[in-house]
Amino acid sequence: MIPKEVMRIIEEMRLERIRGASYLAKKGAEAYLLLSELLQGDELKEAIREVGREIRAVNPSMASLYNLSRFIPITGDPKTVRMKAEEFVRLSEEARKEIGNIGSELIDENEVIITHSFSSAVLEILKNALRKGKRFKVILTESSPDYEGLHLSKELDALGVPFEVITDAQIGLFAEKATLALVGADSVTKDGAVVNKAGTKLLALACHDAGVPFYVAAESFKMHPEADAKDVELMERPYSRQGYRVRNYLFDITPWKYIRGIITELGILVPPKEI
Amino acid sequence: MIPKEVMRIIEEMRLERIRGASYLAKKGAEAYLLLSELLQGDELKEAIREVGREIRAVNPSMASLYNLSRFIPITGDPKTVRMKAEEFVRLSEEARKEIGNIGSELIDENEVIITHSFSSAVLEILKNALRKGKRFKVILTESSPDYEGLHLSKELDALGVPFEVITDAQIGLFAEKATLALVGADSVTKDGAVVNKAGTKLLALACHDAGVPFYVAAESFKMHPEADAKDVELMERPYSRQGYRVRNYLFDITPWKYIRGIITELGILVPPKEI
Repeated sequence: MIPKEVMRIIEEMRLERIRGASYLAKKGAEAYLLLSELLQGDELKEAIREVGREIRAVNPSMASLYNLSRFIPITGDPKTVRMKAEEFVRLSEEARKEIGNIGSELIDENEVIITHSFSSAVLEILKNALRKGKRFKVILTESSPDYEGLHLSKELDALGVPFEVITDAQIGLFAEKATLALVGADSVTKDGAVVNKAGTKLLALACHDAGVPFYVAAESFKMHPEADAKDVELMERPYSRQGYRVRNYLFDITPWKYIRGIITELGILVPPKEI
Repeated sequence: MIPKEVMRIIEEMRLERIRGASYLAKKGAEAYLLLSELLQGDELKEAIREVGREIRAVNPSMASLYNLSRFIPITGDPKTVRMKAEEFVRLSEEARKEIGNIGSELIDENEVIITHSFSSAVLEILKNALRKGKRFKVILTESSPDYEGLHLSKELDALGVPFEVITDAQIGLFAEKATLALVGADSVTKDGAVVNKAGTKLLALACHDAGVPFYVAAESFKMHPEADAKDVELMERPYSRQGYRVRNYLFDITPWKYIRGIITELGILVPPKEI
């Protein structure tokens, strides 16, 4: 049985509308930490199994949740669980910082960066570039219907970075005005496809058409060790407007061939030449 | 001087948020008709010049308004003005019907048609296909921020055509599920580019990627006799969300190379081979 305090964290993960895969993985690690304080022995062992299922079910297309659940050993020893959960959080934070460092090197003076939705890895890159004294401008989508983009505009406002918000439908128009595209990822499949907020593929296509390099920032724990693009189960949330049901898949899939590189904490992955 | 009754029509044209170039051209013709009832001689002549300027300014990127203003002769004879305005309306209606007839031939049994925004020419094609006994399904975008798509969903609901509404950001995802794309146009430039609701280019790119034929329905009076894609002045309307200004260009430009054909009342135009 999962203790109700732990279920509450999982419930919060389910309800989260703005933040993505990195944040949810961190919340998931918190659930394991709390579990290690509340249970031990066979009860802990069984609860770890159940929490793993629940966390993966929060979003079946998020490799970060899958990888987290595999990172935590099924054991009755609370100390091991705590150590591994803390290690996961520490590695995630180090990864994000290193992505910020590596990714910011792609930003040239007066770059016009276009992005879609909200990605903490992309924000880390922008903060890093700012610390390195680079000046740049950001074009960002409002990202309907949950408007995660406006969460990014608040952050940029606070940092003093100039930005313009656009509707999602104007991605084609504004990709032509950008010099670099940077997005996050919820998952990267084994065949190099990027699962990210619906609309990401449109940005990749528009950048391809306009000759703008399109990069993805993703910690290595977002890489799915087994799933190919065709295996990805895309999650949908209810949404309606003016009495009509509106389809609302959260993610779309951008194939490798439209991606210039995936920025990870280990370096930048580039697609194989034969694609 | 433009009589205030005529100015009221022009004001209505400026405020129109849902319907596009065909509707506005018809409203413009009504303005000329009313003018021919109210004025004559030099006063009429001068008012025709002024109305032409005002109508073109309603939306400088709409060739239909430009062509209407050129169709009406600058004359002091009310009868001539009335005749020409009536002729414009009649030709427009005939054109729309013939587009419905020609376009519906592209629709095969069980076609899955994806469209963006609201186009009266596309609706005419769908109605025509329905009359010919064809069964098909429509995927349509809500078309934020004015939601013209939901105007189309009401029409399809009334006709009993099955449809699904999607957010604009899911165009990439749902283009893969479609077998045919049909959109309207606000203008077609001399070099074959289609000016239509922002997001149309994204649908064209997604269809190109997914191998789905992309057709545009446009009466010949939407073809600009002089302007190239680079000359098009894209109109923007104010829009904000959560206190942030959001850019809101109404249109984007889809180049010839992504278009399988433009359905006009004269037949289907196909891009020249060298593109």
